[in-house]
Amino acid sequence: MDERRLLELFEQKKYIEIKRELSEMNEVDVAELLDPLDAHMTLLIFRMLPKDLAVEVFAHFSMEQQLGIINSVTDKELEYIMDELFFDDMIDLIEEMPANIVKKVLKSTKEDERKLINQFLRYPADSAGSIMTIEYVDLRKGITVKEALTHIKETGLNKETVYTCYVTDRKRTLEGFVSLRTLVTSDENLLIDDIMENEVIRVNTHDDQESVANVFRKYGFLALPVVDNENRLTGIITVDDIMDIMEQEATEDFQRMAAMAPSEEAYLDTGVFTLAKHRLPWLLILMVSATFTGRIMGKFENVLASVVVLSTFIPMLMDTGGNSGSQSSTLIIRGLATGEITTHDWWKVLWKELRISFIVGVALAAINWVRLILLEKTDILIAVTVSITIVVTVMASKIVGGVLPLVAKKLKMDPAIMAGPLITTIVDALALMVYFGIATVLLGL
Amino acid sequence: MDERRLLELFEQKKYIEIKRELSEMNEVDVAELLDPLDAHMTLLIFRMLPKDLAVEVFAHFSMEQQLGIINSVTDKELEYIMDELFFDDMIDLIEEMPANIVKKVLKSTKEDERKLINQFLRYPADSAGSIMTIEYVDLRKGITVKEALTHIKETGLNKETVYTCYVTDRKRTLEGFVSLRTLVTSDENLLIDDIMENEVIRVNTHDDQESVANVFRKYGFLALPVVDNENRLTGIITVDDIMDIMEQEATEDFQRMAAMAPSEEAYLDTGVFTLAKHRLPWLLILMVSATFTGRIMGKFENVLASVVVLSTFIPMLMDTGGNSGSQSSTLIIRGLATGEITTHDWWKVLWKELRISFIVGVALAAINWVRLILLEKTDILIAVTVSITIVVTVMASKIVGGVLPLVAKKLKMDPAIMAGPLITTIVDALALMVYFGIATVLLGL
Repeated sequence: MDERRLLELFEQKKYIEIKRELSEMNEVDVAELLDPLDAHMTLLIFRMLPKDLAVEVFAHFSMEQQLGIINSVTDKELEYIMDELFFDDMIDLIEEMPANIVKKVLKSTKEDERKLINQFLRYPADSAGSIMTIEYVDLRKGITVKEALTHIKETGLNKETVYTCYVTDRKRTLEGFVSLRTLVTSDENLLIDDIMENEVIRVNTHDDQESVANVFRKYGFLALPVVDNENRLTGIITVDDIMDIMEQEATEDFQRMAAMAPSEEAYLDTGVFTLAKHRLPWLLILMVSATFTGRIMGKFENVLASVVVLSTFIPMLMDTGGNSGSQSSTLIIRGLATGEITTHDWWKVLWKELRISFIVGVALAAINWVRLILLEKTDILIAVTVSITIVVTVMASKIVGGVLPLVAKKLKMDPAIMAGPLITTIVDALALMVYFGIATVLLGL
Repeated sequence: MDERRLLELFEQKKYIEIKRELSEMNEVDVAELLDPLDAHMTLLIFRMLPKDLAVEVFAHFSMEQQLGIINSVTDKELEYIMDELFFDDMIDLIEEMPANIVKKVLKSTKEDERKLINQFLRYPADSAGSIMTIEYVDLRKGITVKEALTHIKETGLNKETVYTCYVTDRKRTLEGFVSLRTLVTSDENLLIDDIMENEVIRVNTHDDQESVANVFRKYGFLALPVVDNENRLTGIITVDDIMDIMEQEATEDFQRMAAMAPSEEAYLDTGVFTLAKHRLPWLLILMVSATFTGRIMGKFENVLASVVVLSTFIPMLMDTGGNSGSQSSTLIIRGLATGEITTHDWWKVLWKELRISFIVGVALAAINWVRLILLEKTDILIAVTVSITIVVTVMASKIVGGVLPLVAKKLKMDPAIMAGPLITTIVDALALMVYFGIATVLLGL
């Protein structure tokens, strides 16, 4: 069913047909289909959906539609939605809603759940605690496979996942895990204790979501247990949520490296003023810092005035430096994000970039030399100046580009924001100083 | 167990202890631990491992270690490894190995498997077909839940996943799917036909892996069925492989946008010459194209000579243009990669960037104006020239940056490579032409 057919059926009041067709669709597609409709129509169709589908669709709505639904449904309906919503989705909702709506939502939850919500809201943003959910299957030590399967049969439908079950003792200490695959392929009289894995890879509630994503990717898990400082199981994170986080973290790094304030909102859904606001600060900072580069040129105004042709090489030198630097910084920033490179590797990075930049710098300078001397018949001293500047600039850019992200990381700053946008400015200034320095000496200005 | 303890135990010949401790570890960690060891020692320890763990560890080895193992083990051992290895891992292996090793590997596979391998090797690189595996659970229509669970119990251990089972008819046409969660929570006398989902979201063998990753993320699936053009089930893709692909595709885009040849190899493991080779071509192209920018300046040499101060604004103008353009191009390239933006949105993007760039351009120009007039007491005509150039450059950069990736995509070129590195060069030339054009008119040069 597409939007046109939905509107057509709606106009003809063929509600039963709408219900039938929507019920067969994936909840993500239903949410996508209803999201652009106006609040009144959405509510009408939303109420036609089978209850369990409705809650799933609700979880996938945009915040605007969620607000509209919460404002329009009865207290009883809202209670049902909140009761059925997975805990992590509810926390997401509460974090984004305005205060008066949060009040209404909290009124629809049970006393003990409210306590838990408050506890979850205190976890730092982007920590494992803030993205985990509490709907996991926990099995007590000492039960049999058959008992475990019965337990899953009874409670499994309300769990975020049943495919990884966690084994805990009475104090909720995490002791092991067992996959549903192991359960269904094992003899049903075996004890859980005998088939569970004892070595459990786990994350802490305060771990950063990016490092959690790296653990998921490394091991290919479907779920990871989250424990507190006393090693008690407090929640789980499932792979479907981690895929969103991987995408979001990569997007944020792209934005930061392109000198923007990161945003989770989709480009097409974001207003022009918001987008402008995200872009202006860094452009301003970089514009002002680029004027320092201009100052350097100002200082050498007499050099420029006497050999005007020198200025025509400036764009090429600045661009080559900027590009060289951002090649290196990009690799290091990305390596830090995926966990492949750590700050301990600074010496390896430095040594590697030193050698690469020498090769690349000399190669570029050589090609440029041929072009200047053979094709453009440039003055030999100017060609020497330009060529040496290329080698020095490429080497300096790559070393700054390689090391700056590591320094940022070490200082607990975001490498993407501290290293990405600043590289060009630093490298520009470097390139010009080297260029004019060499020119002054060689050309005797 | 860490490397030091392993070497210690190895030296003391405590092989039983090594076997015991390694057996309790996750296969990924075992592979990581053994990977840096020399071939002889790796083989010795590899042979101590329980057989099923050994195969899993083998799948996670680096290509060097895999080669070493294949070259050293007996034909019978190799046969066992190939037999137990998941099909997608075997295809990965065969694709990367030198021809003589491939021959040895193929000799260890069965006749019918060899045919299948050849078929899989023909799928385009980075297509769904090239990353799928054949170890899925397929259920025949008409069987009961109990029969399905028995089938899973018997065959489940050799499947890549048992959590999503696919229902096919006699012609292998994909008719539906049922999750293991549904199976274990349903009455065991129900028919599969009655509990299966009929609407199956599927991908084609020739779909690009990036779009497959987007489907996974959108729906949060654990597995996706891959069908051929006749809608026959030919394989499945599981979420653990997709996480690697998401990371790899993002890394490749980072590399392309930073003007490098993309590489799947880890930075720290890549040789200096290889890294230099990845970086040199684009630096060269961009260096040469930046000389055109220099030519533009050369054309206006007399303007520069008469008003030398004009040249001191060039770095700032070029950087601001470059940064503005890459802000826009980054958002659009990333949106295209995640599927949030399509080429149909070109008009929305254009209109949005037009308005954003106007706001940003005017704001930057205004701030710059204040600085020039109040702080630097710049000549008013020069200040006017610089300010107008900022507005025009920012607008032109953002429009080029927004639209160029869409044009590249439309022309079936990679937006990241076609739009990323080229934006700066295009914008530099634009900025200079606008600048000198306005200067010539306003300053009457």
